[in-house]
Amino acid sequence: MSTKENRSTGNVEETNTAAAAGTRLDPWFNTYADRALGMKQSEVRSLFSVANRPEVVSLAGGMPNIAGLPLDFLADMTARLIRDRGTKILQYGGGQGEEELREMITEVMRPDGIRAHPDDITVTTGSQQALDIISEIFINPGEVVLAEAPSYVGALGTFRAYQASVVHVPMDEFGLIPERLEETILQLQRAGRPIKFLYTIPNFHNPAGVCLSLERRPQIVDICRRHHVLIVEDNPYGLLGFDGDPLPALQSLNPDGVVYLGSFSKTFAPGYRVGWALAPSAVTQRVLLANENALLCPTTFGQLSIAEYLKTYDWYQQVKEYRQVYHERGAAMQRALKTHLPMCEWNQPDGGFYTWVKLPDGLDAQSMLPRAVTQLVAYVSGTAFYADGNGHDHMRLSFCYPTPEAIEEGVRRLSVVVQNELEVVEMFGVKGSQTKPPRNIEMPEPDLK
Amino acid sequence: MSTKENRSTGNVEETNTAAAAGTRLDPWFNTYADRALGMKQSEVRSLFSVANRPEVVSLAGGMPNIAGLPLDFLADMTARLIRDRGTKILQYGGGQGEEELREMITEVMRPDGIRAHPDDITVTTGSQQALDIISEIFINPGEVVLAEAPSYVGALGTFRAYQASVVHVPMDEFGLIPERLEETILQLQRAGRPIKFLYTIPNFHNPAGVCLSLERRPQIVDICRRHHVLIVEDNPYGLLGFDGDPLPALQSLNPDGVVYLGSFSKTFAPGYRVGWALAPSAVTQRVLLANENALLCPTTFGQLSIAEYLKTYDWYQQVKEYRQVYHERGAAMQRALKTHLPMCEWNQPDGGFYTWVKLPDGLDAQSMLPRAVTQLVAYVSGTAFYADGNGHDHMRLSFCYPTPEAIEEGVRRLSVVVQNELEVVEMFGVKGSQTKPPRNIEMPEPDLK
Repeated sequence: MSTKENRSTGNVEETNTAAAAGTRLDPWFNTYADRALGMKQSEVRSLFSVANRPEVVSLAGGMPNIAGLPLDFLADMTARLIRDRGTKILQYGGGQGEEELREMITEVMRPDGIRAHPDDITVTTGSQQALDIISEIFINPGEVVLAEAPSYVGALGTFRAYQASVVHVPMDEFGLIPERLEETILQLQRAGRPIKFLYTIPNFHNPAGVCLSLERRPQIVDICRRHHVLIVEDNPYGLLGFDGDPLPALQSLNPDGVVYLGSFSKTFAPGYRVGWALAPSAVTQRVLLANENALLCPTTFGQLSIAEYLKTYDWYQQVKEYRQVYHERGAAMQRALKTHLPMCEWNQPDGGFYTWVKLPDGLDAQSMLPRAVTQLVAYVSGTAFYADGNGHDHMRLSFCYPTPEAIEEGVRRLSVVVQNELEVVEMFGVKGSQTKPPRNIEMPEPDLK
Repeated sequence: MSTKENRSTGNVEETNTAAAAGTRLDPWFNTYADRALGMKQSEVRSLFSVANRPEVVSLAGGMPNIAGLPLDFLADMTARLIRDRGTKILQYGGGQGEEELREMITEVMRPDGIRAHPDDITVTTGSQQALDIISEIFINPGEVVLAEAPSYVGALGTFRAYQASVVHVPMDEFGLIPERLEETILQLQRAGRPIKFLYTIPNFHNPAGVCLSLERRPQIVDICRRHHVLIVEDNPYGLLGFDGDPLPALQSLNPDGVVYLGSFSKTFAPGYRVGWALAPSAVTQRVLLANENALLCPTTFGQLSIAEYLKTYDWYQQVKEYRQVYHERGAAMQRALKTHLPMCEWNQPDGGFYTWVKLPDGLDAQSMLPRAVTQLVAYVSGTAFYADGNGHDHMRLSFCYPTPEAIEEGVRRLSVVVQNELEVVEMFGVKGSQTKPPRNIEMPEPDLK
């Protein structure tokens, strides 16, 4: 009730809501649901506007490089679809998504070791919407969601909107640490706090860039099975390993205990906004109901365009070309970091879009960002990837969208900023106090060098 | 807590959840959020599968007739878009939607008397998703949403998912009755129950087919303004009046007090899944945050396809052609009803997709439906459009999708079913007891002849 009291006295600054632009100037301010007061502007969005300025080298966004798409092929294919099947593809479809696409999705998941039935797949508006639905059907306000430390900013925003209490579990260079996961579960169980699910990105983690090792996969699955914790496995980057096919999905190790989220946004194109959830059959019933409540049905046009692409184009070859592009850009990022930012520490991802960079002691990625933008380079502050105030000492640097030359130039600009910051710190002392302590349970910083 | 107790004893049948397929066979049954237990399968969806069987004449669905779309034009236009702007339209966009489309949407709303700024528009995945977002940001569990009696089944499903308490307000042939609206508001205020918004479909109501009269529009707006009740104005059919331009939108009478929902699903094509919310500026901030949490951004492909269509095709002429088609089909429905169902009562809509038909005393639309399907005709039972158990004495008959010949044949088949039912009733007496009394506050049946 404290938020309500604050609302009625207009004492907005003392609530969580300041960032959500609620003020007394909004005549409907006292009408919002409690959950709306917890929503805040994503750091990613603030960065979209900056990143779009052409003079800025953006190492911030997660936009895939789709310049390599076969546009002529897609133009012809789509025109043919509209001409031949227009009254089908422009009409409403079923709430679960088109069977034609769901069948192809079972093929797309085969490299992950997944053997699925189309009936267990629900097509969503990007995997972000699947995250929203999973949150909607599982999270009561105040209940716990486990997530890696750090975790995907878009997932944290959704969990916050459903008033979840996010508890982070540490990672190292082999991904989520099984022992720490089990410790955390036991601690929460002792405290009587129900855990709704573990949200994890096993492959080429966003933002940490690491991959859950082959050895740990059955361990994580086994811990969750023993403690009856559902796993939500988010896998947008799985096919984008630099060196070949992916490790087996957690879903393949325990289909009844995992909701697997997939997306065409990184392996094909995000503009269609098509993703999916593969869930245990009983859960699928609820996913489908929530999907219909949310938007009746996913876009028929987008779905059947993608189905046609998968059927008539060598899509896996396209994925391999993407891999090559990102491999080159990932290598350019490593070279640039070695050349220009030797005072930082970072990891060496084997796929995906991101490098997770630790700043020298005393530097704060969040407060440094405006100075970086002045130097015409952008990144995402590590704070975006924590629900508990951590992350000030990290930056996420993306290598997906900028060319190798732009990556080199961006990191060079960043080095000027970091160097300036270091000089300030040397002159005035370390200002490490900006890093807030975690709120929920004690947990150390992830070690992701 | 009663649902929880029922869950732990497995006593599913005694909760609201039976329809949602939750059973002890679902290992995650005790993990769901409370709101997931209130979701139930939409009557519309159950009907999709029936309606799709070719031998059935479906008077059930709300699928627009898109056979008249200029497919060759759209094929060429889309191919050109992909070739010329492929890396834009297949990429992520902003969470509020493409400015190019939002500008065109301000044009599309002009016939409704709306003067809007593109900044106050948020593009959504159909207007259904706008409904979901509005519910998310306004409704705490147990709070009241006002809706016409009857109201749109898809909205009721969403309100239920957010655990709203829907209170129906009666309509007559001129739409929502202002006096009854004010009475209801006062009654609820006296009972200390906060009202989150009035959900209303002023134009060519779904399912009732009526239009809110010109005289009543300022009255409804004034009542809501005086009592500080937000209006959510859902207007998918506004441009589809048989005889010309629409009446002024409620939004145009009080832009700060109305969230207006629009859609391209009925005036262009539903397969893109593009709709929008026009909200007061402060509310737009939250709509946008919720939209990003839900799906990052709407489909760029769909949005820019529609923007291009609006810019390069005479879209209003296309709307006029749609009007003509629906006018003919609406007239065919009236003729068929007069010929075959003189024992029923119905209204004569001036636009939109639906006729609301009252059955003779003693007949029950819900229990009659399986018998209708046996006669190869489908409709939606009136019960789908009430949150309080009413509607057994009504059917919604759609005239949007079937041809005039199919409408005639469908109503003829229906007359056989009704005649059979009447004979049963005459033989065994009236079984009116199947109509449950309203749950919330006393309210009479709408009079919609």
